[in-house]
Amino acid sequence: VACAAIGFGTKLILDNNLEFLKGKPSKVNLSVKKTEGKVVDTVDMEDIGKQAVFCRCWRSKKFPYCDGSHNAHNEKCGDNVGPLIIKKKES
Amino acid sequence: VACAAIGFGTKLILDNNLEFLKGKPSKVNLSVKKTEGKVVDTVDMEDIGKQAVFCRCWRSKKFPYCDGSHNAHNEKCGDNVGPLIIKKKES
Ligand code: FES
Ligand code: FES
Repeated sequence: VACAAIGFGTKLILDNNLEFLKGKPSKVNLSVKKTEGKVVDTVDMEDIGKQAVFCRCWRSKKFPYCDGSHNAHNEKCGDNVGPLIIKKKES
Repeated sequence: VACAAIGFGTKLILDNNLEFLKGKPSKVNLSVKKTEGKVVDTVDMEDIGKQAVFCRCWRSKKFPYCDGSHNAHNEKCGDNVGPLIIKKKES
């Protein structure tokens, strides 16, 4: 019985683990407004001066704006995310 | 020896699994321009008409624009991400 339990437990853990290795889907947003059903931000162009830099890594403390936190996230996770820059055309 | 191997293997798998349960940091971007070191997009305000909707879930097939894929991602992962809308002020 003990042996079967070990076998069963091992199989259970292995299954979970393989699911993870196969790429079990993970949340993108870990901390921004988690009580909201969906975080959508709307910004008026007229309120952007020369340019604004918007966060797409969901790690910024100034969300929806980028504060450079994508760099630490990329390093930690081997990721390659970066911000969206909205700017006035150079004249 | 077989017993020790089982014990060792179980411990190994368990450790990995617990690391996962504790929230091993995950990539945000799974498929967009993964050969680039950092994906930064720059858009000129003058090229946005009345409004543009930008992806922040990294699942859009029209990246950097949103194509609604955030909804399937949110449902699958229990997440709550949504796009950034840049628009002209209503007059
Ligand atoms: S801090 Fe999130 S993209 Fe820069
Ligand atoms: S498809 Fe990514 S935010 Fe809409």
